[in-house]
Amino acid sequence: MSRVRVHNFSVSLDGFSTGEGQSLDAPFGHAGERLLDWFFQTRTFHDMHEKSGGATGVDDAVARAWGGDIGAEIMGRNKFGPQRGPWEDHAWAGWWGPNPPFHTSVFVLTHHPRPSVEMEGGTTFHFIDATPQEALRQAREAAGGLDVRIGGGPTTIREFLAADLIDHLHITIVPIVLGRGERLWDGLEGLEKRFQIESVTTPSGVTHMTFTKP
Amino acid sequence: MSRVRVHNFSVSLDGFSTGEGQSLDAPFGHAGERLLDWFFQTRTFHDMHEKSGGATGVDDAVARAWGGDIGAEIMGRNKFGPQRGPWEDHAWAGWWGPNPPFHTSVFVLTHHPRPSVEMEGGTTFHFIDATPQEALRQAREAAGGLDVRIGGGPTTIREFLAADLIDHLHITIVPIVLGRGERLWDGLEGLEKRFQIESVTTPSGVTHMTFTKP
Repeated sequence: MSRVRVHNFSVSLDGFSTGEGQSLDAPFGHAGERLLDWFFQTRTFHDMHEKSGGATGVDDAVARAWGGDIGAEIMGRNKFGPQRGPWEDHAWAGWWGPNPPFHTSVFVLTHHPRPSVEMEGGTTFHFIDATPQEALRQAREAAGGLDVRIGGGPTTIREFLAADLIDHLHITIVPIVLGRGERLWDGLEGLEKRFQIESVTTPSGVTHMTFTKP
Repeated sequence: MSRVRVHNFSVSLDGFSTGEGQSLDAPFGHAGERLLDWFFQTRTFHDMHEKSGGATGVDDAVARAWGGDIGAEIMGRNKFGPQRGPWEDHAWAGWWGPNPPFHTSVFVLTHHPRPSVEMEGGTTFHFIDATPQEALRQAREAAGGLDVRIGGGPTTIREFLAADLIDHLHITIVPIVLGRGERLWDGLEGLEKRFQIESVTTPSGVTHMTFTKP
């Protein structure tokens, strides 16, 4: 059975998953790289970006689950890029260069559809104006029986959690107080009742939590 | 050197340390006992309330640090009781019965001072309208060289953290999404820079974090 999964999604102690003021130079706003520093150190991340090296400890073991059996990704427009409103720069094709690490169809949720963009390595970005349910239907069709990953950002994950469409959620609590940005948990009171939850703290200081549908 | 300490202070994933709607029957509002369930199971808590039994695992080991070398406590009025505004029920002497578990002077922060109340077992409640700095000065004087505990609730701890008066903070992340209540972290952006932080997850599913001044 095809599952809907979230992986390697960092949250601060005060519940923010991205900082304030995203821009081309600051994809995570004032948060900088602090939310994802644990992930950037892993061999999983290095492999995704065809760099050598990277740590192979417990953070890496947890991060590696990101890749298996994924047939499509859904992401919000703010994960795709810093533009808002009607597209003015059609040359923009994400933060990830000519060969993005997805290697599947990626459905970008936007109120401003535009033609699909085919990248190297099997990634194709589709731009759709759709509810979570409709986006998932299209992603499942593209995934050919494999799982669908919800890639973020926080608004997108929150909408899919609110619609009870997520089967597996891996979040990482990073011990920082961001103060401002985009909150993950708003409107999700009682979320824990729908999942089995496990937690583990690693030597990097973060706490990985998995929420799995029973 | 006398330190200022916080212990066994639970926070939900979305940063709430108490629920909405505190009352005589619901000291933690709609959160019920979920934030403190891990603590109520411990032998430390049982001992505090002169009950037998209680678990003696890692949660208990962490919780036990609550008691050592404390000469006075400071708490907010909402930890002391559910009354707001001018005191109408002078018979109210806290949630803890005739022999509260503090056994020291306890300074209750309130805009409505009233005469001190001496309890069994060495606890005396003093009611003071004071800034964090002034309350700490009085508590240190009463503590006779021992440490001062800031007992909560979230507003009080937040004010002492904002004033940079806390040397040791133990919080416990409980994997629930409360949705509403009193937030701990508001206004504390960048708090992590002032502390060394350690984390450990225990089999009960909570994550204990200590923030210690270097």
